[in-house]
Amino acid sequence: MRIAEPTVERLIKYHRLLISMKQGNSSVVSSRQIGDMLGIKASQVRKDLSYFGEIGKPGVGYHVERLCEHIEQILSSPKVWSVALVGVGNLGMALMGHSVFQSYKFEVKALFDVDPEKVGQNIMNIHCWHIDDIARVMKENDIEVVILAVPAVEAQTCIDKAISSNTLKGVLSFTQAPVILPKGVLFYAVDVFVELEKLLFFLKEKERNIS
Amino acid sequence: MRIAEPTVERLIKYHRLLISMKQGNSSVVSSRQIGDMLGIKASQVRKDLSYFGEIGKPGVGYHVERLCEHIEQILSSPKVWSVALVGVGNLGMALMGHSVFQSYKFEVKALFDVDPEKVGQNIMNIHCWHIDDIARVMKENDIEVVILAVPAVEAQTCIDKAISSNTLKGVLSFTQAPVILPKGVLFYAVDVFVELEKLLFFLKEKERNIS
Repeated sequence: MRIAEPTVERLIKYHRLLISMKQGNSSVVSSRQIGDMLGIKASQVRKDLSYFGEIGKPGVGYHVERLCEHIEQILSSPKVWSVALVGVGNLGMALMGHSVFQSYKFEVKALFDVDPEKVGQNIMNIHCWHIDDIARVMKENDIEVVILAVPAVEAQTCIDKAISSNTLKGVLSFTQAPVILPKGVLFYAVDVFVELEKLLFFLKEKERNIS
Repeated sequence: MRIAEPTVERLIKYHRLLISMKQGNSSVVSSRQIGDMLGIKASQVRKDLSYFGEIGKPGVGYHVERLCEHIEQILSSPKVWSVALVGVGNLGMALMGHSVFQSYKFEVKALFDVDPEKVGQNIMNIHCWHIDDIARVMKENDIEVVILAVPAVEAQTCIDKAISSNTLKGVLSFTQAPVILPKGVLFYAVDVFVELEKLLFFLKEKERNIS
Protein backbone atom coordinates (compact mmCIF):
# COMPACT_ATOMS: atom_id res chain seq x y z
CA MET A 1 0.00 0.00 0.00
CA ARG A 2 1.44 3.33 -1.08
CA ILE A 3 0.34 6.34 0.95
CA ALA A 4 0.32 9.67 -0.89
CA GLU A 5 2.34 12.58 0.44
CA PRO A 6 -0.58 14.84 1.43
CA THR A 7 -2.09 11.94 3.37
CA VAL A 8 1.19 11.36 5.21
CA GLU A 9 1.31 15.05 6.06
CA ARG A 10 -2.21 14.92 7.51
CA LEU A 11 -1.36 11.76 9.48
CA ILE A 12 1.63 13.56 11.00
CA LYS A 13 -0.64 16.44 12.00
CA TYR A 14 -3.32 14.12 13.44
CA HIS A 15 -0.62 12.36 15.42
CA ARG A 16 0.73 15.58 16.93
CA LEU A 17 -2.73 16.80 17.81
CA LEU A 18 -3.61 13.47 19.45
CA ILE A 19 -0.41 13.56 21.52
CA SER A 20 -1.30 17.00 22.85
CA MET A 21 -4.90 15.85 23.50
CA LYS A 22 -3.60 12.82 25.41
CA GLN A 23 -1.48 15.16 27.54
CA GLY A 24 -4.58 17.29 28.09
CA ASN A 25 -6.44 14.19 29.28
CA SER A 26 -9.01 14.16 26.48
CA SER A 27 -10.36 10.65 25.93
CA VAL A 28 -12.57 11.07 22.85
CA VAL A 29 -12.46 13.37 19.85
CA SER A 30 -14.76 13.81 16.84
CA SER A 31 -13.67 14.18 13.23
CA ARG A 32 -15.15 17.67 13.32
CA GLN A 33 -13.00 18.66 16.33
CA ILE A 34 -9.87 17.28 14.69
CA GLY A 35 -10.77 19.08 11.48
CA ASP A 36 -11.50 22.40 13.18
CA MET A 37 -8.23 22.36 15.08
CA LEU A 38 -6.16 21.54 12.00
CA GLY A 39 -8.07 23.44 9.33
CA ILE A 40 -9.02 20.20 7.54
CA LYS A 41 -12.56 19.21 6.48
CA ALA A 42 -14.23 16.72 8.86
CA SER A 43 -15.13 14.54 5.88
CA GLN A 44 -11.44 14.36 4.92
CA VAL A 45 -10.51 13.35 8.47
CA ARG A 46 -13.11 10.55 8.43
CA LYS A 47 -11.96 9.40 5.00
CA ASP A 48 -8.29 9.32 6.04
CA LEU A 49 -8.93 7.46 9.25
CA SER A 50 -11.40 4.95 7.80
CA TYR A 51 -8.78 4.13 5.18
CA PHE A 52 -6.66 2.84 8.05
CA GLY A 53 -9.59 1.00 9.57
CA GLU A 54 -10.54 3.58 12.20
CA ILE A 55 -14.29 4.13 12.38
CA GLY A 56 -15.42 6.69 14.93
CA LYS A 57 -18.46 5.92 17.09
CA PRO A 58 -21.37 8.02 15.71
CA GLY A 59 -22.15 10.92 18.03
CA VAL A 60 -19.08 10.16 20.16
CA GLY A 61 -15.99 10.09 18.01
CA TYR A 62 -12.64 8.40 18.17
CA HIS A 63 -10.82 6.99 21.19
CA VAL A 64 -7.88 9.43 21.53
CA GLU A 65 -5.31 7.04 22.96
CA ARG A 66 -6.08 4.14 20.64
CA LEU A 67 -6.15 6.35 17.55
CA CYS A 68 -2.88 7.97 18.60
CA GLU A 69 -1.17 4.60 18.97
CA HIS A 70 -2.52 3.37 15.66
CA ILE A 71 -1.20 6.39 13.74
CA GLU A 72 2.09 6.15 15.61
CA GLN A 73 2.41 2.60 14.38
CA ILE A 74 1.80 3.66 10.76
CA LEU A 75 4.40 6.43 11.02
CA SER A 76 6.94 4.50 13.06
CA SER A 77 10.24 3.31 11.69
CA PRO A 78 11.85 -0.07 12.44
CA LYS A 79 15.16 1.68 12.97
CA VAL A 80 16.68 4.88 14.33
CA TRP A 81 18.04 6.98 11.47
CA SER A 82 21.55 8.39 11.76
CA VAL A 83 21.53 12.06 10.83
CA ALA A 84 24.16 14.72 10.13
CA LEU A 85 23.44 18.41 10.58
CA VAL A 86 25.43 20.46 8.07
CA GLY A 87 25.61 24.10 9.13
CA VAL A 88 25.64 25.05 12.80
CA GLY A 89 24.83 28.76 12.46
CA ASN A 90 21.77 30.43 13.97
CA LEU A 91 19.40 28.19 12.06
CA GLY A 92 21.29 25.00 12.87
CA MET A 93 21.40 25.97 16.55
CA ALA A 94 17.68 26.75 16.49
CA LEU A 95 16.98 23.29 15.06
CA MET A 96 19.17 21.60 17.67
CA GLY A 97 17.37 23.42 20.45
CA HIS A 98 13.98 22.22 19.24
CA SER A 99 12.28 19.44 21.18
CA VAL A 100 11.70 17.43 17.98
CA PHE A 101 15.46 17.09 17.75
CA GLN A 102 15.27 14.82 20.77
CA SER A 103 13.22 12.40 18.67
CA TYR A 104 13.41 8.66 19.14
CA LYS A 105 13.23 8.28 15.36
CA PHE A 106 16.64 9.67 14.56
CA GLU A 107 19.94 10.48 16.17
CA VAL A 108 22.17 13.37 15.18
CA LYS A 109 25.58 11.70 14.96
CA ALA A 110 27.67 14.52 13.54
CA LEU A 111 27.71 18.27 12.98
CA PHE A 112 29.58 20.03 10.19
CA ASP A 113 30.62 23.64 9.81
CA VAL A 114 33.52 25.78 8.60
CA ASP A 115 33.68 28.15 11.59
CA PRO A 116 37.06 27.56 13.35
CA GLU A 117 35.37 28.27 16.68
CA LYS A 118 33.02 25.34 16.13
CA VAL A 119 35.08 22.77 14.23
CA GLY A 120 36.68 20.31 16.65
CA GLN A 121 34.28 21.23 19.47
CA ASN A 122 31.35 19.34 20.93
CA ILE A 123 28.10 21.28 20.65
CA MET A 124 25.27 19.94 22.78
CA ASN A 125 27.36 16.77 23.13
CA ILE A 126 27.73 16.21 19.40
CA HIS A 127 31.08 16.57 17.69
CA CYS A 128 31.45 19.25 15.03
CA TRP A 129 33.67 18.42 12.05
CA HIS A 130 34.90 20.53 9.17
CA ILE A 131 32.70 20.20 6.07
CA ASP A 132 35.71 18.79 4.22
CA ASP A 133 35.26 15.68 6.38
CA ILE A 134 31.61 15.09 5.45
CA ALA A 135 32.19 12.08 3.17
CA ARG A 136 34.54 10.27 5.56
CA VAL A 137 32.55 10.90 8.75
CA MET A 138 29.25 9.96 7.10
CA LYS A 139 30.74 6.71 5.80
CA GLU A 140 32.33 5.81 9.13
CA ASN A 141 29.09 6.45 11.02
CA ASP A 142 26.77 5.11 8.33
CA ILE A 143 24.88 8.40 8.26
CA GLU A 144 22.00 8.20 5.78
CA VAL A 145 20.20 11.50 6.32
CA VAL A 146 21.56 15.04 6.00
CA ILE A 147 19.86 18.14 7.35
CA LEU A 148 21.19 21.08 5.37
CA ALA A 149 21.25 24.46 7.12
CA VAL A 150 24.03 26.24 5.24
CA PRO A 151 23.90 29.43 3.14
CA ALA A 152 22.51 28.89 -0.36
CA VAL A 153 25.90 29.28 -2.05
CA GLU A 154 27.37 26.42 0.01
CA ALA A 155 24.47 23.99 -0.50
CA GLN A 156 25.61 22.09 -3.59
CA THR A 157 29.23 21.78 -2.40
CA CYS A 158 28.06 20.21 0.87
CA ILE A 159 25.60 17.92 -0.90
CA ASP A 160 28.29 16.73 -3.31
CA LYS A 161 30.51 15.78 -0.37
CA ALA A 162 27.59 13.94 1.24
CA ILE A 163 26.84 12.10 -2.01
CA SER A 164 30.43 10.88 -2.24
CA SER A 165 30.02 9.14 1.14
CA ASN A 166 27.81 6.60 -0.69
CA THR A 167 25.64 6.33 2.42
CA LEU A 168 23.30 9.26 1.70
CA LYS A 169 19.63 8.34 1.30
CA GLY A 170 17.72 11.51 2.17
CA VAL A 171 18.15 15.28 2.48
CA LEU A 172 16.10 17.82 4.38
CA SER A 173 17.10 21.25 3.12
CA PHE A 174 16.56 24.61 4.77
CA THR A 175 18.30 26.56 2.04
CA GLN A 176 16.43 28.11 -0.85
CA ALA A 177 19.02 26.95 -3.36
CA PRO A 178 17.99 24.16 -5.73
CA VAL A 179 20.39 21.21 -5.37
CA ILE A 180 21.20 18.42 -7.78
CA LEU A 181 20.98 14.93 -6.32
CA PRO A 182 21.36 11.42 -7.76
CA LYS A 183 18.10 9.60 -8.51
CA GLY A 184 17.04 7.61 -5.49
CA VAL A 185 18.07 10.14 -2.86
CA LEU A 186 14.92 11.57 -1.29
CA PHE A 187 14.75 15.33 -0.97
CA TYR A 188 12.46 17.50 1.14
CA ALA A 189 12.80 21.23 1.58
CA VAL A 190 11.46 23.62 4.16
CA ASP A 191 10.87 27.03 2.68
CA VAL A 192 10.29 29.38 5.60
CA PHE A 193 9.36 32.31 3.42
CA VAL A 194 6.66 30.91 1.15
CA GLU A 195 4.26 31.17 4.10
CA LEU A 196 5.31 34.76 4.73
CA GLU A 197 4.68 35.63 1.08
CA LYS A 198 1.28 33.94 1.29
CA LEU A 199 0.38 35.89 4.42
CA LEU A 200 1.29 39.20 2.78
CA PHE A 201 -0.61 38.30 -0.38
CA PHE A 202 -3.84 37.47 1.44
CA LEU A 203 -3.52 40.53 3.68
CA LYS A 204 -3.34 42.65 0.54
CA GLU A 205 -6.34 40.87 -1.01
CA LYS A 206 -8.33 41.37 2.17
CA GLU A 207 -7.62 45.10 2.35
CA ARG A 208 -8.54 45.48 -1.30
CA ASN A 209 -11.89 43.81 -0.71
CA ILE A 210 -12.64 46.04 2.27
CA SER A 211 -11.76 49.33 0.57
CA MET B 1 -11.25 37.36 -8.43
CA ARG B 2 -10.29 35.20 -5.50
CA ILE B 3 -7.11 33.16 -5.96
CA ALA B 4 -6.93 29.89 -4.00
CA GLU B 5 -4.08 29.30 -1.58
CA PRO B 6 -2.36 26.47 -3.50
CA THR B 7 -2.38 28.66 -6.62
CA VAL B 8 -0.79 31.53 -4.70
CA GLU B 9 1.86 29.16 -3.42
CA ARG B 10 2.66 28.01 -6.95
CA LEU B 11 2.77 31.62 -8.20
CA ILE B 12 5.30 32.44 -5.47
CA LYS B 13 7.42 29.49 -6.60
CA TYR B 14 7.15 30.41 -10.30
CA HIS B 15 8.19 33.93 -9.40
CA ARG B 16 11.29 32.82 -7.51
CA LEU B 17 12.32 30.46 -10.25
CA LEU B 18 11.87 33.16 -12.89
CA ILE B 19 14.00 35.59 -10.87
CA SER B 20 16.84 33.08 -10.72
CA MET B 21 16.41 32.34 -14.45
CA LYS B 22 16.59 36.05 -15.25
CA GLN B 23 19.82 36.26 -13.24
CA GLY B 24 21.09 33.26 -15.21
CA ASN B 25 20.27 35.12 -18.45
CA SER B 26 17.62 32.67 -19.68
CA SER B 27 15.19 34.39 -22.01
CA VAL B 28 12.57 31.70 -22.65
CA VAL B 29 11.24 28.81 -20.59
CA SER B 30 8.70 26.08 -21.31
CA SER B 31 5.94 24.92 -18.98
CA ARG B 32 7.69 21.55 -18.87
CA GLN B 33 10.97 23.12 -17.72
CA ILE B 34 9.19 25.14 -15.03
CA GLY B 35 7.31 22.03 -13.96
CA ASP B 36 10.42 19.83 -13.84
CA MET B 37 12.34 22.31 -11.73
CA LEU B 38 9.52 22.78 -9.24
CA GLY B 39 8.03 19.28 -9.18
CA ILE B 40 4.74 20.50 -10.66
CA LYS B 41 2.98 18.99 -13.69
CA ALA B 42 3.51 20.96 -16.93
CA SER B 43 -0.26 20.93 -17.51
CA GLN B 44 -0.77 22.59 -14.13
CA VAL B 45 1.80 25.27 -14.97
CA ARG B 46 0.04 26.00 -18.27
CA LYS B 47 -3.35 26.09 -16.56
CA ASP B 48 -2.13 28.48 -13.84
CA LEU B 49 -0.46 30.84 -16.28
CA SER B 50 -3.26 30.87 -18.85
CA TYR B 51 -5.63 31.80 -16.04
CA PHE B 52 -3.63 35.03 -15.74
CA GLY B 53 -3.62 35.51 -19.50
CA GLU B 54 -0.15 34.11 -20.20
CA ILE B 55 -0.11 31.81 -23.22
CA GLY B 56 3.29 30.32 -24.04
CA LYS B 57 4.38 30.17 -27.68
CA PRO B 58 4.03 26.53 -28.84
CA GLY B 59 7.43 24.86 -29.16
CA VAL B 60 9.16 27.88 -27.59
CA GLY B 61 7.61 28.69 -24.24
CA TYR B 62 7.21 31.80 -22.14
CA HIS B 63 9.23 34.99 -22.21
CA VAL B 64 11.07 34.83 -18.86
CA GLU B 65 11.32 38.54 -18.14
CA ARG B 66 7.75 39.41 -19.14
CA LEU B 67 6.29 36.46 -17.25
CA CYS B 68 8.35 37.35 -14.19
CA GLU B 69 7.08 40.93 -14.21
CA HIS B 70 3.50 39.82 -14.70
CA ILE B 71 3.59 37.46 -11.71
CA GLU B 72 5.40 40.09 -9.65
CA GLN B 73 2.53 42.45 -10.37
CA ILE B 74 -0.04 39.89 -9.21
CA LEU B 75 1.89 39.25 -6.00
CA SER B 76 2.87 42.84 -5.32
CA SER B 77 1.40 44.90 -2.52
CA PRO B 78 0.44 48.57 -2.79
CA LYS B 79 2.14 49.21 0.55
CA VAL B 80 5.11 48.15 2.64
CA TRP B 81 3.91 46.13 5.64
CA SER B 82 5.23 47.01 9.07
CA VAL B 83 6.36 43.89 10.86
CA ALA B 84 7.41 42.97 14.40
CA LEU B 85 9.63 40.00 15.13
CA VAL B 86 8.78 38.50 18.51
CA GLY B 87 11.59 36.27 19.76
CA VAL B 88 15.20 37.05 18.91
CA GLY B 89 16.78 33.72 19.84
CA ASN B 90 18.64 31.47 17.40
CA LEU B 91 15.61 31.13 15.15
CA GLY B 92 14.82 34.85 15.17
CA MET B 93 18.43 35.66 14.40
CA ALA B 94 18.45 33.10 11.57
CA LEU B 95 15.35 34.75 10.08
CA MET B 96 16.89 38.22 10.35
CA GLY B 97 20.03 37.04 8.60
CA HIS B 98 18.05 35.68 5.66
CA SER B 99 18.09 37.65 2.41
CA VAL B 100 14.27 37.59 2.22
CA PHE B 101 14.27 39.72 5.36
CA GLN B 102 15.63 42.53 3.23
CA SER B 103 12.37 42.43 1.26
CA TYR B 104 10.84 45.51 -0.26
CA LYS B 105 7.41 44.19 0.74
CA PHE B 106 7.80 44.63 4.47
CA GLU B 107 9.91 46.38 7.02
CA VAL B 108 10.79 44.98 10.43
CA LYS B 109 10.06 47.92 12.70
CA ALA B 110 10.53 46.33 16.12
CA LEU B 111 12.01 43.32 17.86
CA PHE B 112 10.76 41.84 21.13
CA ASP B 113 12.41 39.51 23.58
CA VAL B 114 12.80 38.96 27.33
CA ASP B 115 16.57 38.45 27.39
CA PRO B 116 18.08 41.36 29.39
CA GLU B 117 21.12 41.29 27.11
CA LYS B 118 18.89 42.04 24.11
CA VAL B 119 16.14 44.27 25.48
CA GLY B 120 17.07 47.94 24.99
CA GLN B 121 19.70 47.15 22.36
CA ASN B 122 19.68 47.61 18.61
CA ILE B 123 20.11 44.33 16.75
CA MET B 124 20.95 44.71 13.07
CA ASN B 125 19.81 48.34 13.42
CA ILE B 126 16.38 47.45 14.81
CA HIS B 127 15.44 48.25 18.39
CA CYS B 128 14.63 45.34 20.71
CA TRP B 129 11.88 45.95 23.29
CA HIS B 130 10.66 43.83 26.17
CA ILE B 131 7.65 41.68 25.24
CA ASP B 132 5.64 43.58 27.88
CA ASP B 133 5.81 46.57 25.49
CA ILE B 134 4.35 44.71 22.48
CA ALA B 135 0.90 46.36 22.53
CA ARG B 136 2.20 49.92 22.97
CA VAL B 137 5.05 49.69 20.44
CA MET B 138 2.84 48.01 17.83
CA LYS B 139 0.20 50.71 18.22
CA GLU B 140 2.72 53.55 18.05
CA ASN B 141 4.32 52.14 14.91
CA ASP B 142 1.12 50.85 13.34
CA ILE B 143 2.59 47.35 13.10
CA GLU B 144 0.12 44.99 11.45
CA VAL B 145 2.13 41.79 11.07
CA VAL B 146 3.82 39.70 13.76
CA ILE B 147 6.42 37.03 13.12
CA LEU B 148 6.42 34.73 16.11
CA ALA B 149 9.67 32.92 16.91
CA VAL B 150 9.26 32.28 20.65
CA PRO B 151 9.15 28.98 22.55
CA ALA B 152 5.74 27.24 22.36
CA VAL B 153 4.85 28.05 25.98
CA GLU B 154 5.24 31.78 25.34
CA ALA B 155 3.26 31.89 22.10
CA GLN B 156 -0.24 32.67 23.37
CA THR B 157 0.96 35.29 25.87
CA CYS B 158 2.80 37.16 23.14
CA ILE B 159 -0.13 36.89 20.73
CA ASP B 160 -2.53 38.21 23.37
CA LYS B 161 -0.32 41.27 23.83
CA ALA B 162 -0.19 41.78 20.07
CA ILE B 163 -3.98 41.47 19.81
CA SER B 164 -4.47 44.16 22.42
CA SER B 165 -2.55 46.62 20.21
CA ASN B 166 -5.64 46.63 17.95
CA THR B 167 -3.36 46.96 14.93
CA LEU B 168 -2.67 43.24 14.39
CA LYS B 169 -3.84 41.85 11.05
CA GLY B 170 -1.65 38.83 10.41
CA VAL B 171 0.63 36.34 12.19
CA LEU B 172 3.37 34.12 10.83
CA SER B 173 4.19 31.56 13.49
CA PHE B 174 7.28 29.42 13.81
CA THR B 175 6.16 27.74 17.03
CA GLN B 176 4.34 24.44 17.06
CA ALA B 177 1.84 25.66 19.65
CA PRO B 178 -1.71 26.26 18.47
CA VAL B 179 -2.72 29.87 19.19
CA ILE B 180 -6.12 31.45 19.59
CA LEU B 181 -6.74 34.54 17.48
CA PRO B 182 -9.75 36.80 16.89
CA LYS B 183 -11.66 36.17 13.66
CA GLY B 184 -10.24 38.31 10.89
CA VAL B 185 -6.58 38.02 11.90
CA LEU B 186 -4.81 35.92 9.26
CA PHE B 187 -2.60 33.12 10.53
CA TYR B 188 0.09 31.14 8.74
CA ALA B 189 2.45 28.70 10.37
CA VAL B 190 5.75 27.23 9.32
CA ASP B 191 6.25 23.79 10.71
CA VAL B 192 9.87 22.91 10.13
CA PHE B 193 9.48 19.34 11.28
CA VAL B 194 6.57 18.07 9.21
CA GLU B 195 8.97 17.81 6.28
CA LEU B 196 11.47 15.90 8.39
CA GLU B 197 8.77 13.45 9.47
CA LYS B 198 7.73 13.02 5.84
CA LEU B 199 11.29 12.35 4.78
CA LEU B 200 11.74 9.68 7.46
CA PHE B 201 8.40 8.10 6.57
CA PHE B 202 9.20 7.76 2.86
CA LEU B 203 12.73 6.53 3.60
CA LYS B 204 11.18 3.78 5.69
CA GLU B 205 8.65 2.92 2.97
CA LYS B 206 11.41 2.78 0.39
CA GLU B 207 13.56 0.42 2.45
CA ARG B 208 10.57 -1.80 3.07
CA ASN B 209 9.86 -2.06 -0.64
CA ILE B 210 13.49 -2.95 -1.40
CA SER B 211 13.81 -5.66 1.24
